[in-house]
Amino acid sequence: MRADGQRTRAAILRQAADLATVKGLDGLTISELAAALGMSKSGMYAHFESKEALQLATIDVASRIFDEAVVAPALHVEPGIDRLVAMCDAFFDYLQRRTFPGGCFFVVTALEMGERIGPVKECVQHCHADFVGVLRQNAEVAVGRGQLSATEKPDVLVFELNGVILAAHVHSVLHGKADALDIARQVVRRRFGLTGTSGLV
Amino acid sequence: MRADGQRTRAAILRQAADLATVKGLDGLTISELAAALGMSKSGMYAHFESKEALQLATIDVASRIFDEAVVAPALHVEPGIDRLVAMCDAFFDYLQRRTFPGGCFFVVTALEMGERIGPVKECVQHCHADFVGVLRQNAEVAVGRGQLSATEKPDVLVFELNGVILAAHVHSVLHGKADALDIARQVVRRRFGLTGTSGLV
Repeated sequence: MRADGQRTRAAILRQAADLATVKGLDGLTISELAAALGMSKSGMYAHFESKEALQLATIDVASRIFDEAVVAPALHVEPGIDRLVAMCDAFFDYLQRRTFPGGCFFVVTALEMGERIGPVKECVQHCHADFVGVLRQNAEVAVGRGQLSATEKPDVLVFELNGVILAAHVHSVLHGKADALDIARQVVRRRFGLTGTSGLV
Repeated sequence: MRADGQRTRAAILRQAADLATVKGLDGLTISELAAALGMSKSGMYAHFESKEALQLATIDVASRIFDEAVVAPALHVEPGIDRLVAMCDAFFDYLQRRTFPGGCFFVVTALEMGERIGPVKECVQHCHADFVGVLRQNAEVAVGRGQLSATEKPDVLVFELNGVILAAHVHSVLHGKADALDIARQVVRRRFGLTGTSGLV
């Protein structure tokens, strides 16, 4: 019975993460989620005592899915530029596969939570900052190992890569542009000088 | 009386545009808006017959505010690179002033509407595409006038500038980083070769 309960909870949270990328974390209501899963509202309340508890647990599950899809594959690659490129590519793959129906969970919720206050915003902010931190660490390695100029500022590089990721999201999800992810891959490579002059510039 | 009605309608829509940047277009309920403005719900319905009508009218008002703040100031500047830089700078100023409390109306709603269908999404998509179109036109002028290399692809350049704008939004609004807009201004200038080697790279 306990294992059953855990499976149900996991199924609820996976569905909740999907729904949040389409309707937002604020659009995540226990009644709508119950309807989507064919469960009773009281059954849902047995798992989550409040909407906030559901939102926080959903972010936690989404964070594990994100790490597995985007961060983990790049850990097999050498730290520095190679890992940065691998991580961006893994992000574009994850977006292309539509792991979540509305695109990247953290892009959608980062924008949604922008000006809110409270634990849900802090949790999203924390997850986003973790990812930015991993990128930053690799930017520092790239400078430290001489893969990038010593005058290169890791914070600026990470800002730029984050911009490419966000533009890839908006151009592919909002505008449905099929070439957005190819452009994104090329922009990342050119930023690191990995394309010839016959490339994009 | 008629002028009074128009003033009331304008006041409702300005408030709605502010609210949408914090709660999303979907979070824009007639009852919440009525409460924020100290109006009755029936008074609100006299102006907007449905939530969708309110959302569409709000996007229209936000679009005028955006054009006035971001596009219009740059029209005094020479088309091409100068105008692209002026338009990006105007965007960063508009973000810094918090013309809307939640950041840029179209960044927030573009991400919110990503996977929806229907007229509200199409309207947001249309406004975003209009802005991208203005950037693209100036990128073409810059290539045509030899300000940029003939191999430069306007679509790629616009993708990159859009990325800088989005990253500026996320780093300043979500993470509250005070230096995000300075970094954004520098990244735009470096992209056009307008900084010396002592600059960012």
